[in-house]
Amino acid sequence: MYSDITFASDRPVYIQVKDYMKKLIRKGALQADQKLPSTREISVLMNISRNTAVTAYTELEEEGFIYAVRGKGNFVAAGAAGGTSDRLSVQAEREPARLDWRQRASDYARQAEQMDLMKHGIRAEKGSILFTSIAPDEKLFDLQNVKRAFLDRMSIEGEVLLNYGYAKGYKPLIDYLLRYMENKGVDLTGKDLLITNGFTEAFELVLSAIGQRYGAALCENPTHQTAIKNMKLHGYGITGVDMEKDGLDLRQLEKELGSRPFDLAYLVPSYHNPTGIVMAPEKRTEALRLLSGYEVPVIEDGFNEELRYSGSHVAPLIASAGAGNGVIYLGSYSKILFPGLRVGWILADKELIGLLESMKRARTIHTSTLDQSLLYQYLSNGNFEKYLKKARAEYKRKYELATACIKAHVPYQTLSGDGGLHLFLAFEETFHTRQLLEACKRKGVVFTPGDIFYTKEGQGGHTMRLGFSRVSDEDIEAGIRIIGETAKELFY
Amino acid sequence: MYSDITFASDRPVYIQVKDYMKKLIRKGALQADQKLPSTREISVLMNISRNTAVTAYTELEEEGFIYAVRGKGNFVAAGAAGGTSDRLSVQAEREPARLDWRQRASDYARQAEQMDLMKHGIRAEKGSILFTSIAPDEKLFDLQNVKRAFLDRMSIEGEVLLNYGYAKGYKPLIDYLLRYMENKGVDLTGKDLLITNGFTEAFELVLSAIGQRYGAALCENPTHQTAIKNMKLHGYGITGVDMEKDGLDLRQLEKELGSRPFDLAYLVPSYHNPTGIVMAPEKRTEALRLLSGYEVPVIEDGFNEELRYSGSHVAPLIASAGAGNGVIYLGSYSKILFPGLRVGWILADKELIGLLESMKRARTIHTSTLDQSLLYQYLSNGNFEKYLKKARAEYKRKYELATACIKAHVPYQTLSGDGGLHLFLAFEETFHTRQLLEACKRKGVVFTPGDIFYTKEGQGGHTMRLGFSRVSDEDIEAGIRIIGETAKELFY
Repeated sequence: MYSDITFASDRPVYIQVKDYMKKLIRKGALQADQKLPSTREISVLMNISRNTAVTAYTELEEEGFIYAVRGKGNFVAAGAAGGTSDRLSVQAEREPARLDWRQRASDYARQAEQMDLMKHGIRAEKGSILFTSIAPDEKLFDLQNVKRAFLDRMSIEGEVLLNYGYAKGYKPLIDYLLRYMENKGVDLTGKDLLITNGFTEAFELVLSAIGQRYGAALCENPTHQTAIKNMKLHGYGITGVDMEKDGLDLRQLEKELGSRPFDLAYLVPSYHNPTGIVMAPEKRTEALRLLSGYEVPVIEDGFNEELRYSGSHVAPLIASAGAGNGVIYLGSYSKILFPGLRVGWILADKELIGLLESMKRARTIHTSTLDQSLLYQYLSNGNFEKYLKKARAEYKRKYELATACIKAHVPYQTLSGDGGLHLFLAFEETFHTRQLLEACKRKGVVFTPGDIFYTKEGQGGHTMRLGFSRVSDEDIEAGIRIIGETAKELFY
Repeated sequence: MYSDITFASDRPVYIQVKDYMKKLIRKGALQADQKLPSTREISVLMNISRNTAVTAYTELEEEGFIYAVRGKGNFVAAGAAGGTSDRLSVQAEREPARLDWRQRASDYARQAEQMDLMKHGIRAEKGSILFTSIAPDEKLFDLQNVKRAFLDRMSIEGEVLLNYGYAKGYKPLIDYLLRYMENKGVDLTGKDLLITNGFTEAFELVLSAIGQRYGAALCENPTHQTAIKNMKLHGYGITGVDMEKDGLDLRQLEKELGSRPFDLAYLVPSYHNPTGIVMAPEKRTEALRLLSGYEVPVIEDGFNEELRYSGSHVAPLIASAGAGNGVIYLGSYSKILFPGLRVGWILADKELIGLLESMKRARTIHTSTLDQSLLYQYLSNGNFEKYLKKARAEYKRKYELATACIKAHVPYQTLSGDGGLHLFLAFEETFHTRQLLEACKRKGVVFTPGDIFYTKEGQGGHTMRLGFSRVSDEDIEAGIRIIGETAKELFY
């Protein structure tokens, strides 16, 4: 006892001494009213300074774990030794409740776990080439500017940042984003903005806010798998509308809209996940006109729309809707800037935002003020535009490299992706990318099989998504070569 | 046009020039293919440097808003001018969908707004003395240590902190908290820990995870009003068990448990909100034994348990439960440390944590890595213990001052609060604190009427909560004197 303590380097020694003593008391190795070694003795036993021992004992006393008797020394406090000295507690420990949590869990909890791709997804050997991520490349992060933004904001209003904020969000960031959206052509009349913990919370809030009358949701097919998951978790039956080269198949959209009522539509018009397609401007207005005619509210996912490499500016759907209030725009800096900062936003009808604000308060009170204010200062310092320029150039380079490698090595049928962080490939219908994945995995290459993005079981078995943002040039070349060779071996 | 631009000081000028030009294009003041002033002209018109004008134009071109013709100048891009040049868009703008969001909202959304106390709560005149807050006093925040923690962590692994984290939480913080909870006497066998966005998300996740069989929840009466709100939002009927001086009325608890089945119990054993009562150790074990016997899972709110000024150490319920898995402990640093950092945690049965992890992923992906890592580094640097010592001393001083003032001036019947950030007063049953509040408000003093903490309408009308953490000594004295005088005028 005592001399067996080992010290970690990441915390003050006196705290570790305290923790050690508490554990002895808890485990019953030290009993109530038992005398403790003196601070001098303990300093020798633990090979620590006398001062450290005194600090540890003083705090243990303050916290009620030990008590001092003048001239006699320190003793273990009666109530401190866990429940073990107590009759009732012993009883409780003898018969602790053992609940079957799986059986007691809600259907929602069980479904969330069943659909959790991180738990049932692709496992790769260490050292594999991973085309599965579409997170930004952290080598692009301008840490110096982030540090500066933090320190700038802390000196302006550090106390404010660390105390409670507002459910609606950090005011300067709200104002910044309203201006930002106005510059994308949005008519802000009758609209308002709420800050969320990234896209995911925004989507969740909106799904919970919209009353479900028909249990039916409409979306592109394929689409963002998290959106599919969350719509299913909310009990929606999902109708997918096929993607053409320039976005939604409008005839199919019209047919579906005419055939049954929908509670909502979820669309990713700019830089669609997983196909990377940017919906053509004329399709946008026509799709909006159709949905508007059937009074179906549209949840617009502004996913990565900043990341386009080139081409003319395309306005978001909510801009085309003018003064209408049928489009709910969800934005996020996570995919393009820093995913670790959980900041997204909802721009929508003022009344709806009012409801969402109360829901947000009931669920997470507010988004981290630190994240919001740091982001605000970073944006205000003008760093985002610089970062974006650098990021666009780098991702464009990788995009061109990946595209060239695919054309050279892979027997694909169609290839889509106007830029951004990934490409989407379709092979012949008879092809099975899951089979290809198994074979590639053994050679140290993994990608995302496309079927997970489809609204119906059995669809998209011949497709795959290749994320290249975090893969080195070398690995892009080597990995795509392996995918191509393996595909040819297996299917041709 | 152009010369009417005004510049804000918080953003680079070229960005403001870009924004201004975009707005002109959007609003139709500049039409498709219209020629723009040269960069020289614009620099004169806007009184900016030529370089700034060039940068702005270059980026407008990159973003597709304008195009350059060699030797001819810059022109507005065709697609950029919003939808206004487009037939379909004009149509959409003519008939934008106007949805009635209040009618389309879910019951949940409407209820969340109805129960939102921030919207329907007490409004006070500016300059009033506010006894309504129980947030920490920001003057106590050690900003230097927060800055140091941030910079320390950024230099260790800045890139990691800004990229995606894990739904379960930031590993070093999880490990730290497991050790922290073990030192409170918790048997970690079969348990695990999940990081959340503060207490509120933790509570929300747990409420969603527990399958509802009877629609019945049990709690102390009065109790934390956010907990009441959220249990109601989840459709629970709530049974309150009265509080005695040392915690729950155990006979009443036993009676209620015998009379009907419950899905869960929510308890705040340490430093109860709003009464400030710390449940006696023998009551804890007995309450746990009863709940365990009826197999009712307990959600333990570890609210502020670190804030006790004195007295012997009291173990949380989850420690008394030993190897049992019936207690779900919710912890948070928000109330005591920095509320702006949204970090809380759930310590519970491993299998339940697995389900909660998937739910967390589906709802908010993960808690801000920046918040988590900053907090971890702050804790590891040993700052928390120092802060706690300072905070405890300061709050104790205020507590004693407030208590003395109440005893001197207020005609109360019972006064409770073992410390922390607030006191709870009960007057004679015939007294109405809402009426008192109205009268005090006119004199510039507000407090929280106690009825909001009660599980049934009409209860607690004679009680109030006084939060003193953010009130200056002067205002504590002046405010309580006014409350006392007004109470005497009104009711005696």
